[in-house]
Amino acid sequence: MMIPKLQIALDNLTFTDAINALKGVAQEVDIIEVGTILLCAEGIRAVEYIKNMYPDKIVLADAKIADAGKIITPMMFDAGADWTTIICCADIPTVASALEIAKQRGRDIQIELTGHWTKELAQEWQKIGVRQVVYHRSRDSQAAGVNWGLADLEKVGQLCKMGFQVTVTGGVNVEDIQFFKELPIYVFIAGRAIRDASSPVSAARAFKNEFEKYW
Amino acid sequence: MMIPKLQIALDNLTFTDAINALKGVAQEVDIIEVGTILLCAEGIRAVEYIKNMYPDKIVLADAKIADAGKIITPMMFDAGADWTTIICCADIPTVASALEIAKQRGRDIQIELTGHWTKELAQEWQKIGVRQVVYHRSRDSQAAGVNWGLADLEKVGQLCKMGFQVTVTGGVNVEDIQFFKELPIYVFIAGRAIRDASSPVSAARAFKNEFEKYW
Repeated sequence: MMIPKLQIALDNLTFTDAINALKGVAQEVDIIEVGTILLCAEGIRAVEYIKNMYPDKIVLADAKIADAGKIITPMMFDAGADWTTIICCADIPTVASALEIAKQRGRDIQIELTGHWTKELAQEWQKIGVRQVVYHRSRDSQAAGVNWGLADLEKVGQLCKMGFQVTVTGGVNVEDIQFFKELPIYVFIAGRAIRDASSPVSAARAFKNEFEKYW
Repeated sequence: MMIPKLQIALDNLTFTDAINALKGVAQEVDIIEVGTILLCAEGIRAVEYIKNMYPDKIVLADAKIADAGKIITPMMFDAGADWTTIICCADIPTVASALEIAKQRGRDIQIELTGHWTKELAQEWQKIGVRQVVYHRSRDSQAAGVNWGLADLEKVGQLCKMGFQVTVTGGVNVEDIQFFKELPIYVFIAGRAIRDASSPVSAARAFKNEFEKYW
């Protein structure tokens, strides 16, 4: 199996906080995510600034596009995003139009599995050629005390078997990594686990050590 | 039945375009919507500027919140939004936390029914006290040639019967209004039908005339 990639999620409330969170640690990660919170706060310029600051990194704009895929998808790519996300309940024509734009431009989209989705929808994504999905334990569910469990593992495993490149996110800590060791996880996202660490660089390296140990 | 409210959707790509679209016509509408496209483009300041320009209007931030309701919901309200939207596939704890924040502040949330949702979910929203839902014909479905039909009318009717205050949107033209005349529609949204009209003021008044004629 390939070694998973490490993605830092910038879910800051201001761009200033985001660049401070990135300082030093950016070179330790493979993917920099402009989180939905930061995108809501600062708008598309957050994507533009990050890509200009780190042109050699994969920049992901977590736009969670639900509609108007033909407008919002190119907006993200024009600003420099390599990948952007579509929310799982989006109509299939919305997903298809975003995917087509991505392919034309050598970029990619990810289906963001926040909240309710079904196996039937996953089959439709597969059919139209979606490659990436993001398995997401919701922030509010985490706050409600719901932890990573066998149900998560089973769902992630099914998505991998369907051939999707799966990103795992939602309060992932270093100790959670080995839980997924049997699966070909494509990306792990760490947000607060890196940003709030006393040494973000050490925290990022601890994730990468676990990846190398188990994959 | 109460006369429906008229909402203008600002789905512009820049704030400059949005204020130009509003000029003259703002006083004709009840609700000004900072659309998802504008929010992605300009960030939260678009909400702040609009509320400061039109403090006597209901300002709706169409954030389509999927997660992190405890962070994004107050962000929208702090900026001056009266209402904000939650995407239909959001986990119930996310909806509940956003609703609680809204109630504490005398504001409101709307469930945005873009894409896939179920009757079971609608019953859960009802149970936790959600009042408003937005029935949405997707922009990409419109582009794919799907028109307003009896299936839409039936679903909107069911939502009204469940006691929700229903907003209807997704390419609503003046000619479409009478199609809904038997139902207690709470809000109709017009975006391009007003913004792209040769006289936006006349276009807005034509909507209001239809409301008065049929309700």
